[in-house]
Amino acid sequence: MSQIVEEVIAANKKYASSFGAKKDLALPPARGFAILTCMDARLDPAKYAGLSEGDAHVIRNAGGRATDDAIRSLVISHKLLGTREWFVIHHTNCGMELFTDDVIGDLLADSLETAKFDGKAWPNPKHGDGASAGQFIKWHTIKDQARSVLQDVHRIREPSSRCKAYSGLRLHLRRPFR
Amino acid sequence: MSQIVEEVIAANKKYASSFGAKKDLALPPARGFAILTCMDARLDPAKYAGLSEGDAHVIRNAGGRATDDAIRSLVISHKLLGTREWFVIHHTNCGMELFTDDVIGDLLADSLETAKFDGKAWPNPKHGDGASAGQFIKWHTIKDQARSVLQDVHRIREPSSRCKAYSGLRLHLRRPFR
Repeated sequence: MSQIVEEVIAANKKYASSFGAKKDLALPPARGFAILTCMDARLDPAKYAGLSEGDAHVIRNAGGRATDDAIRSLVISHKLLGTREWFVIHHTNCGMELFTDDVIGDLLADSLETAKFDGKAWPNPKHGDGASAGQFIKWHTIKDQARSVLQDVHRIREPSSRCKAYSGLRLHLRRPFR
Repeated sequence: MSQIVEEVIAANKKYASSFGAKKDLALPPARGFAILTCMDARLDPAKYAGLSEGDAHVIRNAGGRATDDAIRSLVISHKLLGTREWFVIHHTNCGMELFTDDVIGDLLADSLETAKFDGKAWPNPKHGDGASAGQFIKWHTIKDQARSVLQDVHRIREPSSRCKAYSGLRLHLRRPFR
């Protein structure tokens, strides 16, 4: 086992030993809401939104974007588990603002090794072991946080030609943002 | 504002006021790993895996499944932010075990109101205000947790015809599960 695996298992054992009465928490979120937010390591949604175990669904992806998969999760959250308010929470200094689809597509085509941002660009540490697949993926990068979070709320709220399949579901939900 | 919005904003203000030195945390996860897990309200990944702010990426969706969007997030996590180990963590008593694509598709076609599980089925509280869109969505439900978590790790690790686009990227990563 790697050191990280050992550390995570040890932390989990400690937490599990004090889990106590929480093992009987109900499946539906007690406070009836869900949060869609970024995977960023610096974000702890339970802490930043004041959640205890059992309170709310938390959906996270790169950017906290309203992708098809996030909407799949939100619809399950509402239809089967009763949430009636949803938050979309982005954050300052998000990594998704530091590249574009072209940048990551070209980086991956050149090499799969981790590239490090130098303040302006992402130089690859080596070359020639890439895969062109990344040039055919929509990465959901962010140019302007104020705009992107509104786009995401908009996609969740309203029908559009791109996500027509969900429009009936999403329009039915109460609006957390006014 | 709804009561929930007020509560979340108040909790956030309190947390922000004590955030202190954490505001200078680096963007790349300090401990170099990512966790893919379920959105379930009872799960607190920071607590169950022993994470502090800045340690690790956390990706969450309904079921903790290795969907295209989860893989998009994982690839960004590795390629641009340097993670080299990934965990896929499912859990007992998951809501995704309580329905199938047919069940949620038919429920949504009948009504968009929240259905409540009665131990056997999900009776709709009313009828006739549904949308057929749900019958055309892959919901990533779970029949057997031991099997589904392996399927997800398998999809992340290996090339397959369904997710060929990602195969080059995923095979390149170190394996957290041995």
